[in-house]
Amino acid sequence: MPNRPVLDFWYEFASPYSFLSALRAEALADEAGVTLRWRPFLLGPIFAGQGWTTSPFNLFPNKGRYMWRDLERQTTRNGIRLMRPNPFPQNSLVAARVALAGREAGWTPAFSRALFTAAFSEGRNIAEEAVLVAALRQAGADPGQALPAARSEEVKGRLKAETELAKSLGIFGAPTFVTGDGELFWGDDRLEEALGWAADGR
Amino acid sequence: MPNRPVLDFWYEFASPYSFLSALRAEALADEAGVTLRWRPFLLGPIFAGQGWTTSPFNLFPNKGRYMWRDLERQTTRNGIRLMRPNPFPQNSLVAARVALAGREAGWTPAFSRALFTAAFSEGRNIAEEAVLVAALRQAGADPGQALPAARSEEVKGRLKAETELAKSLGIFGAPTFVTGDGELFWGDDRLEEALGWAADGR
Repeated sequence: MPNRPVLDFWYEFASPYSFLSALRAEALADEAGVTLRWRPFLLGPIFAGQGWTTSPFNLFPNKGRYMWRDLERQTTRNGIRLMRPNPFPQNSLVAARVALAGREAGWTPAFSRALFTAAFSEGRNIAEEAVLVAALRQAGADPGQALPAARSEEVKGRLKAETELAKSLGIFGAPTFVTGDGELFWGDDRLEEALGWAADGR
Repeated sequence: MPNRPVLDFWYEFASPYSFLSALRAEALADEAGVTLRWRPFLLGPIFAGQGWTTSPFNLFPNKGRYMWRDLERQTTRNGIRLMRPNPFPQNSLVAARVALAGREAGWTPAFSRALFTAAFSEGRNIAEEAVLVAALRQAGADPGQALPAARSEEVKGRLKAETELAKSLGIFGAPTFVTGDGELFWGDDRLEEALGWAADGR
């Protein structure tokens, strides 16, 4: 379709609200006639820039307690299982590189959904190769190609560049949705509004 | 009505998203058959407890820039005017005391709406007595009684106790909605969900 609007979906594999969006964004984007561009990045360097060495959900205990309870309610509403990953946050560096290695072949979204499910519905450790391999297989990707590609300098550089771009766009949390005209929408709660904005072509 | 469910609406006069909720909560609560209990408190002491000396919207510039843009979008959607108060955040100590002085007479909600409008739609300084007096008059309250009451030890103690209670409930931001069974819902985005939870009597 010509001129189908695009919405960038910036997500972080360690982020609980990115998990919520990853499982519901594609169907809503289809309904809205919007193409979703899946853009994994790392929040760690962005948090470090404001003096945080871990997730704000760990730094601020009341906020963290609230978030896990809220996530229980949201997953119940969405009909999905929640199992809290341990440790939290997960180390998402390799996961993000693997996701970016699938950009040309097109399996990034399916791999990302599978890996988010492993992390937050099954409590798996996404830094483990076996967990990455299982998610790749679910996405129809070949682990024998994807894992070496994820370790290549090219893909490592790609993740650095994406994270730098996120920072320069003013992104400070995940998920963040960015429209073609540069509007930022932060949080799973803003997904519908972001799609509406993108679809209106504003 | 017997056993009409109650939802506590914890708000801070300096908080932009409390402003959004204050202007729309009562109509939605009526629709849901829920009684809203207006509970002004101070976020300052709670922020101080986690080492913050000002609003997180000032501490984290990207978050602050995003918040003001988001607030522009939300007020446009809600059909209300936005004028950014200067300075931000406003000193809300006296405002919260005045609001609590109206609890028995029942003008706390009307006064709070008028003062939020002065702060965020007209850019007024809510620490100024003239601004408080105008909001009291709009709410049908007598400034000659309300202001001395707000300065009384009893009302000062009431605000301290409310803020302590908020902290002990695990409140870390505003607005926060708390149901009779102790569920917390943080943020203007969760107002509808909080009302639904309260109405279901869960």
